[in-house]
This record gives sequence, structure tokens and C-alpha cells, in this order.
Amino acid sequence: MTETDRHPTTGRVTLAEVAGVAGVSVGTASKALNGSGRMRPETRQRVLDAARRMDFQPNEAARSLLGGRTWTVGLITTDGIGRFSTPVLLGAEDALGAGKISVLLCDTRGDAIRERHYVDALLARRVDGIIVTGRRTDSREPLNGLQGVPTVYAFTPSTDPADMSVASDDEGGARLAVEYLIGSGRRRIAHITGPAHHAAARHRARLTEDLIGQASLELSGGRVHFGDWSEAWGRRAAHTVLRTAPDTDAFFCGNDQIARGAADTLREEGHRVPEDVAVIGYDNWDTMALASRPPLTTVDMNLPEIGRIAALRLLDAIDGRTVSGVETVPCRLVIRDSA
Amino acid sequence: MTETDRHPTTGRVTLAEVAGVAGVSVGTASKALNGSGRMRPETRQRVLDAARRMDFQPNEAARSLLGGRTWTVGLITTDGIGRFSTPVLLGAEDALGAGKISVLLCDTRGDAIRERHYVDALLARRVDGIIVTGRRTDSREPLNGLQGVPTVYAFTPSTDPADMSVASDDEGGARLAVEYLIGSGRRRIAHITGPAHHAAARHRARLTEDLIGQASLELSGGRVHFGDWSEAWGRRAAHTVLRTAPDTDAFFCGNDQIARGAADTLREEGHRVPEDVAVIGYDNWDTMALASRPPLTTVDMNLPEIGRIAALRLLDAIDGRTVSGVETVPCRLVIRDSA
Repeated sequence: MTETDRHPTTGRVTLAEVAGVAGVSVGTASKALNGSGRMRPETRQRVLDAARRMDFQPNEAARSLLGGRTWTVGLITTDGIGRFSTPVLLGAEDALGAGKISVLLCDTRGDAIRERHYVDALLARRVDGIIVTGRRTDSREPLNGLQGVPTVYAFTPSTDPADMSVASDDEGGARLAVEYLIGSGRRRIAHITGPAHHAAARHRARLTEDLIGQASLELSGGRVHFGDWSEAWGRRAAHTVLRTAPDTDAFFCGNDQIARGAADTLREEGHRVPEDVAVIGYDNWDTMALASRPPLTTVDMNLPEIGRIAALRLLDAIDGRTVSGVETVPCRLVIRDSA
Repeated sequence: MTETDRHPTTGRVTLAEVAGVAGVSVGTASKALNGSGRMRPETRQRVLDAARRMDFQPNEAARSLLGGRTWTVGLITTDGIGRFSTPVLLGAEDALGAGKISVLLCDTRGDAIRERHYVDALLARRVDGIIVTGRRTDSREPLNGLQGVPTVYAFTPSTDPADMSVASDDEGGARLAVEYLIGSGRRRIAHITGPAHHAAARHRARLTEDLIGQASLELSGGRVHFGDWSEAWGRRAAHTVLRTAPDTDAFFCGNDQIARGAADTLREEGHRVPEDVAVIGYDNWDTMALASRPPLTTVDMNLPEIGRIAALRLLDAIDGRTVSGVETVPCRLVIRDSA
């Protein structure tokens, strides 16, 4: 490079000079150098080549390292399997502009040390914000040492009411199922669900009991059947309920696997679904719900919408508009053949 | 800031001076400014504050924007559901040092325009490399316009033999299943699988036919039963096979859902599994394989290992050691109760 490339007073190459050599505007040169904006890869490369050739000191690029935005968001998930976190992630990614803001994925596999390590890595990369999600609806301890980086909890809310969380309206989901059953004339409704130490099981069970009481009915079988989230439990519990309460005319189940197991037991013990006994599941996990005989009527938590709203709240927080507390996303009832 | 902070000859603040003010080593200051390395967040912040206060022009930080490594890798997946790509991703992440190299996640949902957009975004962020994965074992067209960025295809290989791909050994997987059945005395083996236009179905079917022929046996039912990947197809096809070839003593199925459907039909039509008829699935999808009655013996593709090896090959390529062609990862047979 020659002396004439240098800034007249500081002796340093200016962004305008790089832009001139590359044949682009100053704005395009800036975006090319700080890795933002949309342009043809050849254009970006031409600017980068010019900057390198001219030994340009990229203040613009440096700015993101010294306090500006990096247009990256960390997504921390504790859900190794991904059945719940994947749709949340897809919804968030849509709201983040599908690539305009990049998502740094961190799967902690439920390991606190791994989580700490990832938080440090995200802070080191100076992400603009963090979305935290998980496989359970139970509240979780907030992340520590965030240094003021905006953070939103999606699906798995934070225990700290000062944090922003976006959760599923679990009680509303149970209401949809129970009111549909009562509205279609069912009077002997049983409830089979997962472990009582899971919030998802407890919240749905509590509302089911409340609504059945409000309708002056009683739970068939006399109590909620807490167990695990498996088909095997659904089969076993349905068998027990039918033996102790043979007039049961509906099963509301805590997830689709339990519902599928219950439907299998009903068929194998000679009951028609839905004519004799209705079955409603929860999650709308398509593989399960569609393979069930008959296909399941089930509650859908709108997981992509939870991710989308979490991302929008995060963008608000990055722009300085922070809110607190838990925002819930309503469920919807997907009606197929089992109820 | 005062004149004494400036470099004696260039008049610019040096990294050593920033380090001195922040009370850290030059190496730590460098890492703090380029967002790499591990340190306490307070330390990093102290260096960033000093650099900002002293108006330091961070050549070190700038270097990654002008040709150095960014310690980020793009992971492009076409698999919106994530059942196949998630374990590949987890394996890759392990090999990338769980946070040492960050993973930028790009889910293209099978949309070519979205994929192009993501490739541009990854190039703009100057990723060190790209891993491409998908939901199918069929080869795919390579990514275009990569500008020499190292790229490895995992699970879904590239059609270009000059690319590096890591794939599952589909024929080896079929061999494990068929040889196990023949070795345990089965002679009337049927094969039910997915659509013939899927490589996974074609490759497994071809090897099944070859091995059965080599053992001087014939496929029960006279031909491979191509259909779809569902339980409903497994139930229907098993029913057809049993009607036309009632002496069938084994089913090798193209995936776990088909195997589960076949096992259900066998039970419901009065055949004992595995005493009368053995069933082997493919994928070792735990939810399906364990919920099946009985739990499925099935072929596991070692998806995390595919991801891990893809990441290692990518790290090699980033270091300049590039290889070409398709490397296959062997499967293993997981023996449960159905065979």
C-alpha cells in the first residue's frame, strides 16, 4: 500500500478508503467488516480482502467486542432428547429472523457444571441475550452471574419472580380437556397421569379435580392415579380403574403415551373407544397420537408459540424494555377420534 | 487518558498497557478482548473496561474478523423434528469440546432458500467450519458458494466424492440383523420396510435379499414389502405376510415403528413373539423400542458417534488436513426380548 491510502491527519486507513477500494458504500463496508447485514458473499469477501491488503484497523468491527451488539443469542437447553425443547427452539428461531440473529446452541444435559461452563462461554462471546429452556414445566433456579445479560426462560420458568418467563398454561390445558368431556356428556371421568413430584402432573390433576367437583361429579376410581409418563403405566392404570370402576366413561391422561396405553387396554378388554369410553391425551406428540388406535384427541401446548414469544420478549429486553414475571401461552384441543 | 499511556513510537495504546492497567497478563488481556479462553467474568470485564477507557484499538480482537479463527462452527440441519439430527449434534458437540468451540445452529426445515440464507449468514460470521446433517441417509447436493470453508456432511452424505462425509453403515446394520436371525435358526424371514425411494429402505432391503440368497433361503412372502415408516404399515404388512406365508418365523423391519406394528399384529393374531416369530427393528428409538410388546431387539446406528467423527474430521480440515469420500460408522445390534 502507498502513503496516499492513509488518513491525512492520523496516518491511518479510513473505512471510507476501504469502501472506495472495494467499490462499495461506507455502510456496506462497515456491515461486511462486522459480519452483519445481508450481501453477496463475493461483496463481503472483496471488502475483507481490501481491508486486509490495506492493513485497516477495523474500529467498526471492534465495536461489537467493546460493548455493541453481537447479533447472537445463546440458547441453553437441558433437554438432551429434544422433544419439548426442539419446537420451542424452532419458534424462537423464527422470531429471531431465521439467521439475522444467530443462535448459539448449548445443551447442558441437566448437568450444573456443564451449564456453568456454557454460561461463561456465552458471556465470553458477549451474546446479546440468553433463552433458557428445558424438558419440564417445573420452575428452575435462575442462571447465576449473568452480568446483566438479558435472559428469558421458556417452557421451564425461573423461580425468581424478577425474571421473565414464558410458560404453558397447564391449568388452561386441563380445563380444555375436562370441559370437553363433561360437555359431551361424560360423567365418570378418570385421571391417569405422571409422577406427583412433576409440576405438569400436579397442576393438571388439581384443575381436573376442581372442575369435576364444580360439576357436582366425582373422579372415577375415587382419586387421581399418579405414576409415570409411560404407555405401560397407562395400560396398567386403565386396567385398575376398569376393575374398580367399571362404569368409567372417560379417561383424561397426563400425556399421549399414557393415553395410548389406556386406549390399548380398553380395546383389548372389549371396550369401544370413543363409543363406550372417551380418551384424551396431552402434548399432541404426533408420532404417538397418530399411531394410537384410535388416533388421539389431545391437548397441544403450542410449544413453537412459547419459543416465539420468549424470543420477542428477549428482543424487547435487549432494547431495554424489560418485564418480569411469568407469561402463559394458552393450549388448544386437537380433536381426533378418541373423544 | 494521558500521553504516557501511549506507545512511544506509534502513539497508540498497546495491549501490554491495557493489561497493565487491568492488572492481568498480556495473554489474559488478549483472550478477554477476543472473547476466547476461560476466566472469571469480572476479570474479562475489567480488561474490556480498561480497553474502552484507554481507547485501545484491539488488533487482537480484530484479527478474527480479518482471517483468524472465530472458534465457531455452523451446524446446518434439515431435520425439523430432530430425532436423527439431535443425537448427531450431541456427538459433534462433545467432540468440539462442549463450548470451547461454539455451535451456531441453523435449521433449514428442508427449504433451499432458507439453507442459502443460513450459509450466507455463517460465512458472514466467518465460521471456522460447517457440519451439515439431515433426516435421511440419501445423499444430498453439496452446499454452494462455501468460499473454501471446511465442511463435513454427517449422516446425510454429499453427492460430491470430493467432499468429506460420515455416514451410517446401512448394509452392515442389515447384516447384523439378518445374520442374527439366520444364526438363531430362523428360516422363513420376511422384510417390511419404508418407501423404495428412500436409500435407507433400498440399501437395507438389497443386503437382506443378498444374505438370504447366500444362505440358500428365500424371503418369506416372496419379496420385500416396501411401504412407509409407520406402525400402521407394519401392522398391515405383517397381516398380509402372515396370510400369504403363515410359516413366517421372523420379521426384519426397516425401522422400530414398523417393527412395533408387526409385533402388535402378531400378538393380536395369536402368535407368540419371539417364541413363534422373531421381530427385529432398526434405529433403537428408545421410546418406540421400549414401549413395544415385547421390547424390541433393534439395530442402533450409533448416531452420536457419527456426529463425533464428523466433528473430528472437521477439526482436521480446519487444521489443513483434509480428506475426501464417505467414511462409514458401524452399527450395533441391541438385543431385547423380540428376537
